[in-house]
Amino acid sequence: MNPVEPPSSGVSDAQREAEEALVRRVLDSFDGAPDERLRFVLRSLTTHLHSFVREVRLTEQEWGTAIDFLTAVGHITDERRQEFVLLSDVLGLSMQTIAVNNEVVGDATEATVFGPFFVNDAPEVPNGGDIAFGAPGEPCWVEGTVRDTTGQPIAGARIEVWEADEDGFYDVQYSDERTSARARLHSDADGTFRFWGLTPTPYPIPSDGPVGALLEAAGRSPVRAPHLHFMVSAPGLRTLVTHIFVAGSEYLDRDSVFGVKESLIKPFEHHAAGMPTPDGRDLGDREWSSVVFDIVLTPAAAQRK
Amino acid sequence: MNPVEPPSSGVSDAQREAEEALVRRVLDSFDGAPDERLRFVLRSLTTHLHSFVREVRLTEQEWGTAIDFLTAVGHITDERRQEFVLLSDVLGLSMQTIAVNNEVVGDATEATVFGPFFVNDAPEVPNGGDIAFGAPGEPCWVEGTVRDTTGQPIAGARIEVWEADEDGFYDVQYSDERTSARARLHSDADGTFRFWGLTPTPYPIPSDGPVGALLEAAGRSPVRAPHLHFMVSAPGLRTLVTHIFVAGSEYLDRDSVFGVKESLIKPFEHHAAGMPTPDGRDLGDREWSSVVFDIVLTPAAAQRK
Repeated sequence: MNPVEPPSSGVSDAQREAEEALVRRVLDSFDGAPDERLRFVLRSLTTHLHSFVREVRLTEQEWGTAIDFLTAVGHITDERRQEFVLLSDVLGLSMQTIAVNNEVVGDATEATVFGPFFVNDAPEVPNGGDIAFGAPGEPCWVEGTVRDTTGQPIAGARIEVWEADEDGFYDVQYSDERTSARARLHSDADGTFRFWGLTPTPYPIPSDGPVGALLEAAGRSPVRAPHLHFMVSAPGLRTLVTHIFVAGSEYLDRDSVFGVKESLIKPFEHHAAGMPTPDGRDLGDREWSSVVFDIVLTPAAAQRK
Repeated sequence: MNPVEPPSSGVSDAQREAEEALVRRVLDSFDGAPDERLRFVLRSLTTHLHSFVREVRLTEQEWGTAIDFLTAVGHITDERRQEFVLLSDVLGLSMQTIAVNNEVVGDATEATVFGPFFVNDAPEVPNGGDIAFGAPGEPCWVEGTVRDTTGQPIAGARIEVWEADEDGFYDVQYSDERTSARARLHSDADGTFRFWGLTPTPYPIPSDGPVGALLEAAGRSPVRAPHLHFMVSAPGLRTLVTHIFVAGSEYLDRDSVFGVKESLIKPFEHHAAGMPTPDGRDLGDREWSSVVFDIVLTPAAAQRK
């Protein structure tokens, strides 16, 4: 699989030498960087970006389009919207960074993209509580156990969950400052947790900005496969950022940010209205679903520094 | 010259396969792009950015730093300041794009970076006029002839010139809406042009923003070698964007944007106060300089589409 021509094709020797000499000058300019890691990262980045420009023979007009595109990405980004994260997501770079830093260890739960919609100060909810806080959607009972890779249950693990409502929006995408469909809880002494959330539904990533325009031009859908976000942390264990996905749902094969992993696809059981709920909650005439998500955390020692 | 480790070093087979599978999924996602060129460009960009992330084993913290950096670049960019162009400049990407699109043809004048300080509506000045418009600096007499690669003089070539003042600022960097040290003129019937400008002095690119912080962290100077900008265009000929640099001046070997080319370094002759000027202008007790810049334009047919 070599999707690009070598930079040398159709280019004179003198021209190739001039281009390579320029790359060398830029690389050499980082020789004085006091931080060795920064020097290494900048040299690699420089090498690859120059190879890109040379391989595609980027035109000056295309360069200008790229500058305008990045400018638009910058200008739409604010405290509530992070278009650079979206850009990284749709190029698969967020997922690749996750992959590089979360090598699978034994049967530990796999990580996936963080996404731009996490907030730090979500409300604390007791086990069995409802994280929806009025967000519209079908109730979903979520339960499981947090363990380490030796099978030991983890008491008091911090579990942060967040998701879109059935209209496809996270609370922070509304302008009314609401907090809904997100919470923090902690596992019980036996490692178990349980809460009422919403059955995940497919939704598009924000597509009214430059990243949406890019997806449109590339013939790609902005839709994310239905999912529920988790961030789980406990002392001495690697913090897990992941989702669970709804088995059988659409878009699993074309998630716009490449977040789907086979091991994260879970059966969500569907229950008719009136069926008894695990905690006896009366949902009246509403249908509901349930899912089990058992979480295995990796030792922190396996974490890349 | 191989400044980076191969992506495979120190990575398990299973991990490498997972990373490569992700790259393939992202590349495949562009299969439906209706525009073949866009598909090709996005696939090359994706390939190189993923190789970068994998080679340096980018940490999640570094990824976050990159997102914050790009956000800051976006937020400082406005109609008067283009930090993305600066970023492209200091990574040598602007210069590489110029190189790719302006292969040297015969003895044609070489191109260099455009920079962020050009404006479209500079005042028209007759040959022999003063483009300084009151900008502080030592007067400099600039003259030359515009020819094509057959040696034919070009009448009526549009010559746009712009430069920093002796304090190191372009007019657009002041908040008072001034227009100075820039103009448009046209070559005479015999291809010649002449004007009074300012002797170029070294100046830093704007370094109070994220790109300046990057240069600082990388141990690099933000200073540009002293230069005078030209953009020269005429029907049927490739538009030339270039500078002339002052022979013997500092920073020629470490221009912050890699713009210096040997052929563009010109001797600026120094003249004591009171020495007669080419056009008889009385400069009083001011010293002045003079330079000759003969320009050779490439046929437009040689221009990359």
